[in-house]
Amino acid sequence: MSPEESLDPENWNEMRRLGHRMVDDAMDYLERVRERPVWQPVGDAAKAALRAPLPVKGQGPAAVYEDFLRDVFPNGMGNIHPRFWGWVIGTGTPFGALADMLASTMNPNIGGGDQGPNYVELQTLSWLREMLGYPADSSGLLVSGGSMANFVGLAVARNAEAQTDVAQEGIASAPRRMTLYASTETHNSVRKAASLLGLGRAALREIPVNDAFRIDLEALRRSIAEDRKAGLHPFCVVGNAGTVNTGAFDALPELADLCESENLWLHVDGAFGALAALSPRLKPLVRGMDRADSLAFDLHKWMYMPYDVGCALVRWPEKHRATFVSPADYLAHLTRGLPAGPIWFSEYGVQLSRGFRALKVWMSLKEHGVAKFGRLVEQNCDQAAYLQSLVEADPELELLAPVPLNIACFRFAPPGMDPARLDEINEEILIGLQESGTAVPSSTILGGRFALRVCICNHRTRREDLDLLVREVLQRGRALAAEPARRS
Amino acid sequence: MSPEESLDPENWNEMRRLGHRMVDDAMDYLERVRERPVWQPVGDAAKAALRAPLPVKGQGPAAVYEDFLRDVFPNGMGNIHPRFWGWVIGTGTPFGALADMLASTMNPNIGGGDQGPNYVELQTLSWLREMLGYPADSSGLLVSGGSMANFVGLAVARNAEAQTDVAQEGIASAPRRMTLYASTETHNSVRKAASLLGLGRAALREIPVNDAFRIDLEALRRSIAEDRKAGLHPFCVVGNAGTVNTGAFDALPELADLCESENLWLHVDGAFGALAALSPRLKPLVRGMDRADSLAFDLHKWMYMPYDVGCALVRWPEKHRATFVSPADYLAHLTRGLPAGPIWFSEYGVQLSRGFRALKVWMSLKEHGVAKFGRLVEQNCDQAAYLQSLVEADPELELLAPVPLNIACFRFAPPGMDPARLDEINEEILIGLQESGTAVPSSTILGGRFALRVCICNHRTRREDLDLLVREVLQRGRALAAEPARRS
Repeated sequence: MSPEESLDPENWNEMRRLGHRMVDDAMDYLERVRERPVWQPVGDAAKAALRAPLPVKGQGPAAVYEDFLRDVFPNGMGNIHPRFWGWVIGTGTPFGALADMLASTMNPNIGGGDQGPNYVELQTLSWLREMLGYPADSSGLLVSGGSMANFVGLAVARNAEAQTDVAQEGIASAPRRMTLYASTETHNSVRKAASLLGLGRAALREIPVNDAFRIDLEALRRSIAEDRKAGLHPFCVVGNAGTVNTGAFDALPELADLCESENLWLHVDGAFGALAALSPRLKPLVRGMDRADSLAFDLHKWMYMPYDVGCALVRWPEKHRATFVSPADYLAHLTRGLPAGPIWFSEYGVQLSRGFRALKVWMSLKEHGVAKFGRLVEQNCDQAAYLQSLVEADPELELLAPVPLNIACFRFAPPGMDPARLDEINEEILIGLQESGTAVPSSTILGGRFALRVCICNHRTRREDLDLLVREVLQRGRALAAEPARRS
Repeated sequence: MSPEESLDPENWNEMRRLGHRMVDDAMDYLERVRERPVWQPVGDAAKAALRAPLPVKGQGPAAVYEDFLRDVFPNGMGNIHPRFWGWVIGTGTPFGALADMLASTMNPNIGGGDQGPNYVELQTLSWLREMLGYPADSSGLLVSGGSMANFVGLAVARNAEAQTDVAQEGIASAPRRMTLYASTETHNSVRKAASLLGLGRAALREIPVNDAFRIDLEALRRSIAEDRKAGLHPFCVVGNAGTVNTGAFDALPELADLCESENLWLHVDGAFGALAALSPRLKPLVRGMDRADSLAFDLHKWMYMPYDVGCALVRWPEKHRATFVSPADYLAHLTRGLPAGPIWFSEYGVQLSRGFRALKVWMSLKEHGVAKFGRLVEQNCDQAAYLQSLVEADPELELLAPVPLNIACFRFAPPGMDPARLDEINEEILIGLQESGTAVPSSTILGGRFALRVCICNHRTRREDLDLLVREVLQRGRALAAEPARRS
């Protein structure tokens, strides 16, 4: 018989030394991030290298690391940089990255069983509940992020409210068409979930918002009443705790009252806004969130943890489990040995095999304590308000939405300029900011106008970074305004 | 204004030193894993420590690491150990764990955009296609694992085959009930997906298997014909490349022919079995897999990568994208700046924010080369065959299923013993093996009999480990057989 081989290193000390080098390089990379451009387009050399053919023979770890250093490391997204404010994207932390190495070293599968990592996830979930003021007897699950957390909450809602056994018999067995309700500002993952769950995107009634981008409660009531009158089956309202465009909060206490009286499931998408609960000052924003039947939020956004980790909490553990449990002979839960243990998380979500994403959450909460996260959430909101004040103080800039949280949407808009030209200039400003490596805001459309969108989920941002942003926007805007229009 | 704070360390050099210590401890942990028990029940002290209240103040990184070393590190699942063969669980590698640290250091969000990590995932997917002989022009996505990969494939199948716009209008808009087909040995994630997608578990027709645990093609044809006759809409067959219980392969070429002639979508669940394609010797097993409309498999199982990473491939990129795309103003794909770039992966799956799981796959494939992974897959199959030969050579042991791949199911069964007593004894053997830290097989039920199930997705296993297993099973079995029955 041939000798057996493994994937372990031939020389463990070399792997140790390589690991030390990686730690040093990683810490240098993070310590000096402020000195580098936020982002740069990926160069042709790296693109070509990343089209190399399938490696048949191995290069060994040291040579692979050189390739990584050359082609990958310098070409990051930039979201670890203090001036990255695009979309809703977190920054990560040095200790969080080290925690991920430890998680992958232990490499447990947290489907369940009597193992330390399972207890770590349980403890983490219990901390997260407490942080957000959500009921202690709710069930929960760490997931890949907000999209999956919304999917989990809405799946439970669908099954719990269907009045027939849709898990077994399918949506077609429901006697009436099921409908759900959310504002037009709701995240696209809710639409995606409605589609995937077999309800259809059309089942999601998109309710208009008021000037503060909050759901119009009267329009919501009307829509529900009309659907009932038409013989449909309204079953769920999705409330927003921090919308993606502007950080608006729907009126959660009123939504909870309405759901109670109308007998509807209340799901709250708190992707980042839920974390306002950590700050004593901002906490009033999330009032009513504790009354949600299910709650989705992220840790990799406004808790600054490395990707990817989000969380779904459900007020009704049995309904939660009933939606995802799927017994099988090979998963028998013996009462002793490894299969024993306090919980099988695989019965509460899509994944059967589950990685140890709980470790970075656990280690980061212990490292800093929840009070510091609360201060940082406030700090980011203060920074958004600071940017608002800079914008409002300048006649060439225009604020495009209220700033209730950590998002400011504005544009360069000197008085008297053609609207189409303004859109063109602001798009060019955005691209220029990104291509020069100065800053990365993203964009959105608000009231038909192209907006520079600055969303601060970044523990490295300082006010001076926002000063620089405003200076750059003005400078670029003025230069562009002096040029002849390109498109018109 | 108050001074701004961040989550970066006050002392970077201390964080570097802590990182070095973690690397050393992680490598020691992995290098010496063979010397430790496979698994041990979690002790009361650790359980108590993991019930501590929410940390309000931070402890700092060094103290947190001490807690980790005391309460978490010694209480792993054990799947990194050479004698762990439970369920279908991979082992991870030292370099893979370091790669995860680098991924979390860069911490990109691979929803899309012009960034190195996006190109890394594209290259990785192209390598995976080539490895498995799947069409080069198919679309693909790294996901959390096989359950999600099955979900993705079946979601695309549902939408592509519905004949109405179910994504928009919901399953209820389909004129006829949609049905899908898979053998009784199919993984429970397929049932879960049918339920979540709104088809209902009842829409999944569970077709009997033959003595080799392969789908009965005649029964399949009959079931499809009956459903058509009853006015239903058969739309998909799920073929198995390596069933979870015994590693059986359905007759994929025949399934592909049947799907072609019946106009059905063929989804192949190749969670671990698909990797047989890497071995020239085993490759004939996956014949026909390249004809699947969608293919699901894991990297964290038989590619030994750290959790969690699996892959979905779809032959029809436009159908794939149409299932998951969901445009939004805040996701506008500008043609320059960061939002440019070759692909938006978030339009091909549930996740909008996506971590850099591609890096460990990319680095590991480059480290070892695909030929070595092929040898290890063969090695695991040879080891399962070796265990089979040990079982067959011993009159006190009974093989309970063929061993086509890397799974051997057997039991202690000295002639003439009462069947219920045999189940009891084998369960006790299993628990004893686990509790003593000797080995971790899992269990299943085959033909009504309690089976010890040894599934080898483990690059650290040696034949000597299987010798030890057989000795221990016999020794424990004989001792238990000599005791009076407990339950009867």
